[in-house]
Amino acid sequence: MTSETDFIAALRAIATDPSARGLIDDAAVLEIGGKSLILTHDMIVEGVHFLSRDAPEDVAWKLVAVNLSDLAAKGAAPVGLLLGYSLGGESDWDQGFARGLGRAVAALSAPLLGGDTVAAPAGAPRFLGLTAIGEATGPVPSRTGARAGDTLWVSGTVGDAGVGLRMAVGELSAAPELLQRFRRPEPRLALGQRLAPLVSAMMDVSDGLLIDSARMAEASGLGLEVELAAVPLSDALVASVGDGQRTRVDASIAGDDYELLFAAPAEASTAIEETAAALSIPLTPVGRFEAGAGLRIIWNGAPLPLPSRLGYEHGA
Amino acid sequence: MTSETDFIAALRAIATDPSARGLIDDAAVLEIGGKSLILTHDMIVEGVHFLSRDAPEDVAWKLVAVNLSDLAAKGAAPVGLLLGYSLGGESDWDQGFARGLGRAVAALSAPLLGGDTVAAPAGAPRFLGLTAIGEATGPVPSRTGARAGDTLWVSGTVGDAGVGLRMAVGELSAAPELLQRFRRPEPRLALGQRLAPLVSAMMDVSDGLLIDSARMAEASGLGLEVELAAVPLSDALVASVGDGQRTRVDASIAGDDYELLFAAPAEASTAIEETAAALSIPLTPVGRFEAGAGLRIIWNGAPLPLPSRLGYEHGA
Repeated sequence: MTSETDFIAALRAIATDPSARGLIDDAAVLEIGGKSLILTHDMIVEGVHFLSRDAPEDVAWKLVAVNLSDLAAKGAAPVGLLLGYSLGGESDWDQGFARGLGRAVAALSAPLLGGDTVAAPAGAPRFLGLTAIGEATGPVPSRTGARAGDTLWVSGTVGDAGVGLRMAVGELSAAPELLQRFRRPEPRLALGQRLAPLVSAMMDVSDGLLIDSARMAEASGLGLEVELAAVPLSDALVASVGDGQRTRVDASIAGDDYELLFAAPAEASTAIEETAAALSIPLTPVGRFEAGAGLRIIWNGAPLPLPSRLGYEHGA
Repeated sequence: MTSETDFIAALRAIATDPSARGLIDDAAVLEIGGKSLILTHDMIVEGVHFLSRDAPEDVAWKLVAVNLSDLAAKGAAPVGLLLGYSLGGESDWDQGFARGLGRAVAALSAPLLGGDTVAAPAGAPRFLGLTAIGEATGPVPSRTGARAGDTLWVSGTVGDAGVGLRMAVGELSAAPELLQRFRRPEPRLALGQRLAPLVSAMMDVSDGLLIDSARMAEASGLGLEVELAAVPLSDALVASVGDGQRTRVDASIAGDDYELLFAAPAEASTAIEETAAALSIPLTPVGRFEAGAGLRIIWNGAPLPLPSRLGYEHGA
């Protein structure tokens, strides 16, 4: 990863505009005409982020959902998408992708505004890029704003998409909603807009609860303690793989959940619980930020050794 | 090209938002907070749009320049860039690219705000995407607005980059400024902003004067007559490859010039000539729009048969 780290360091030295937020956040924030525009760009690559045998409809959905999840974490409503698409020479795949894209932009209210289509050299993997533009509906949280004493919260349940991935590759047979969770993640757009005014920091869980919350703590210059027993698991996950320390660690280092992860002071708890009730989305306190540095995982009142990896690390 | 045409038709059916302009234009126009934001995304692919042996500094420059050229054609000033970058596993190349990107964003006043870096599978060609966001400084021209009787104008000189490409592949030895023109195109940002209030339609010349002006005529529902003798050639080009019908056709079907092409009524001519003088950029009338359809090329007072291709056709 050294050459990637060096490259990103070189980009950081270029991205000196305050709107870039030092490239630490998942999105840029551009103030224009009295509005805050949120800008994000994510790429997915065949053989890295999706498999050749994945249905093109699912790939299109996921490309839209992962970008909108970055907007959700900023409390933004989508205003437009630009697609970068490499034609792979298989017309059926392209048409399936277009169908899936049409469904995603309609279901998620994110209008397609433009983009570019290029012919890829024969045999090249598909490269798909999407730029999402959103408009903030209130204050714009970053991942750097957590304060000592804040509670760490997570929305919904984690680990479902991780089990879904194991189902997709044929490693496991489990409840179909877990596979669906992997293939068709739902960005938490309405929730993000409600939470933005209440939180001190927010980001989405794309690479895993542990790695993403450790990133939030580090970006905020704090330490963090996560209570493994508090990590919210779905009934379908527990029914499929049971419960216990191992399941909870696996769920906390699995990626692709696209839940919201946020830090908030104690006085926001009532408003957060009201938001959970209003939207019927569980919001669960799972940890606490503290002065210092580093991540600690607590199980049965005592710290657990950290797992050898905290989640996915596949780019910036 | 059928599968590409089908795919783009499917995208057009999805992109129903008025900001998308039917995907006919090179950029989307988003009205927000009383401002007009211009959004464009272009990809370049190794082996298609650039060669493996091209200097990464030049590739970075070109990626920025081609996107900013789309902003120029809308009379917009750049406000930000998002980069989609695939790491090719060669650290020197990545560092050269970052250096070139740093120089381009500084020279062209387009701040890098964010993006995504992905690891590409081994052996995959490099895919580079850039989203450029601009703010219109006045009315926003499209390529659909030309009217019968309008003059077709082009900025600068055309064909230089085409000769530069032949130099780059070792086909020809000629003046070094022509190679530079191919490797380091200069988007006409200041000119575009001055011209936007004066024109009825504007676009950039990326694929060739003839193909791009035919596209403008078609999008505007008009026919077009181009006077080959009027097409502006640089002294360096004439010194390298001579002048005459063949040279002028070659220059008119060569791509990568990134000049501005625009339609304007006769009453705008004085203001256009003043703009040319103020910026020291030649602006040359090269044709006339007329009722009807189709492109005619005039040479020595008579129509020439159209060349078998009018320019590059490499995507949408």
